[in-house]
Formats: sequence, C-alpha cells, structure tokens
Amino acid sequence: MATIFSRIIAGEIPCYKVAENEEFFAFLDINPLVKGHTLVVPRQEVDYIFDLSDEDLAAMHVFAKKVARAIEKAFPCQKVGEAVIGLEVPHAHIHLIPIQKESDMLFSNPKLKLSDEEFKSIAQAINSSL
Amino acid sequence: MATIFSRIIAGEIPCYKVAENEEFFAFLDINPLVKGHTLVVPRQEVDYIFDLSDEDLAAMHVFAKKVARAIEKAFPCQKVGEAVIGLEVPHAHIHLIPIQKESDMLFSNPKLKLSDEEFKSIAQAINSSL
Repeated sequence: MATIFSRIIAGEIPCYKVAENEEFFAFLDINPLVKGHTLVVPRQEVDYIFDLSDEDLAAMHVFAKKVARAIEKAFPCQKVGEAVIGLEVPHAHIHLIPIQKESDMLFSNPKLKLSDEEFKSIAQAINSSL
Repeated sequence: MATIFSRIIAGEIPCYKVAENEEFFAFLDINPLVKGHTLVVPRQEVDYIFDLSDEDLAAMHVFAKKVARAIEKAFPCQKVGEAVIGLEVPHAHIHLIPIQKESDMLFSNPKLKLSDEEFKSIAQAINSSL
C-alpha cells in the first residue's frame, strides 16, 4: 500500500508543496514545531533512510540543503536544524526546522495550529526563496 | 581558536573514538541520550553543516550511514535516528542515536551517566561492527 507521503507526492492527498525535483519532494509539515518546518522525502518509497543507496542518500541531503537555504531566507533563524526519526510514517523523511534555540527542535513541544492561508503563505515564501 | 571537536580529532582532548577516515571522525557523545549515541564530525572546521560543499555534505552523510549500520549491529534498535542542531559547538556534527521509540530522540531527556569502562566497551562494540 502506498505510504501517505507517496499519496501526497502523487497528488491524491493535498499538501503545501515547497520544492521538488525528479527524485525528491519537499512540503510543509502539517504539525509544525515552528513556521517553516518542512519535510523532505524521496519519491522512492523507502522506509528507512539508511536503506537508500549511498548515491540517493547523498542526493537527498544535497536537495535538503537547497531547501534549507530557502527556509533560512524566508524565515531568518540561527540555523536550520535537521532530524530524521522515522518511526511514524514508513517513508524516509528529513525534518528541516528553522531554529532560534535548541529547544525549538523538541518534538514534544506543542505543534503550531496554522490556517490554510498561513500554510500557503509559508510555502510560497520558501518556494520563492529557492 | 580550534573548536573542542578539532581538539578531540587532534588528540588533545580524549574521546571514545568509533570510526574515522580522511575527511570525517566519529566518537561517542559524552552526554548520551542512549547507549551508542555517536557524533559524526568533519575534520574540516565548519560551523554550519549547510556551509559544507555539496560534495562534502554528501560524503559526510555516506560516512554517517556506515557508522549508523555499525551502531545498529552493536545496539539493536528500531532505527538509528539523526539530528543536526548545531547551536552548542561551532563545528558541524550529526548525532546518530539508536532509538526504540520517538522519545529516545528528545534532547531534553536526562543524559546517561556511564563509566569510562562502559564508554570504552560501547565504542569497541560499534567499532568492531564496522
């Protein structure tokens, strides 16, 4: 069965798309820790990120860097942090999170509730900074 | 001034080394969230991971994958999670954390207190799984 991320990539489930290329797809986390919290996923349906080939793993991180640069421009921050946990959705994904302080990365923090308009505006701001 | 990680790599400050190659160095986090919590750093003294060239960033993650595979063998887990925060030490580093559940990745958790012997035995277990 297709993962929820594959269904998002296929357009069967809506998302706030930020960037894409032939191999990877980036969209806003719908339960963001902070504004600009973005997920990068491979189109290839692989559960565990370390099961990607060295080439694909490398390409995924180079793609994530491009997205991170755009997030930084759209949402000025100390740094864009990265997290790969991978126990919820069986489709490898990198969290990119613009942080001002270490605790901005805590997944136990309450998630932001944003409106459809806010999500659209965030995705647009990042996309136009690419 | 050399970062604490450069001084560790140079051997000026002791560490529990796990792996190294010409470009990268892996050693145990001295304040581990769980047994096997490892840091991967480039020998090149770069603060922000996204300031690495695409090539170096890619190579760092391929090196981290090799270390993660060894961590998995030495410390059976659901997955090895990754985190890059980067606000404490101005020298890019990837945390590799063998996790059983998402909350094992919470940096707000109390850190393990391990003896010198325990650290040595963990580093040895990972190193011999490489």
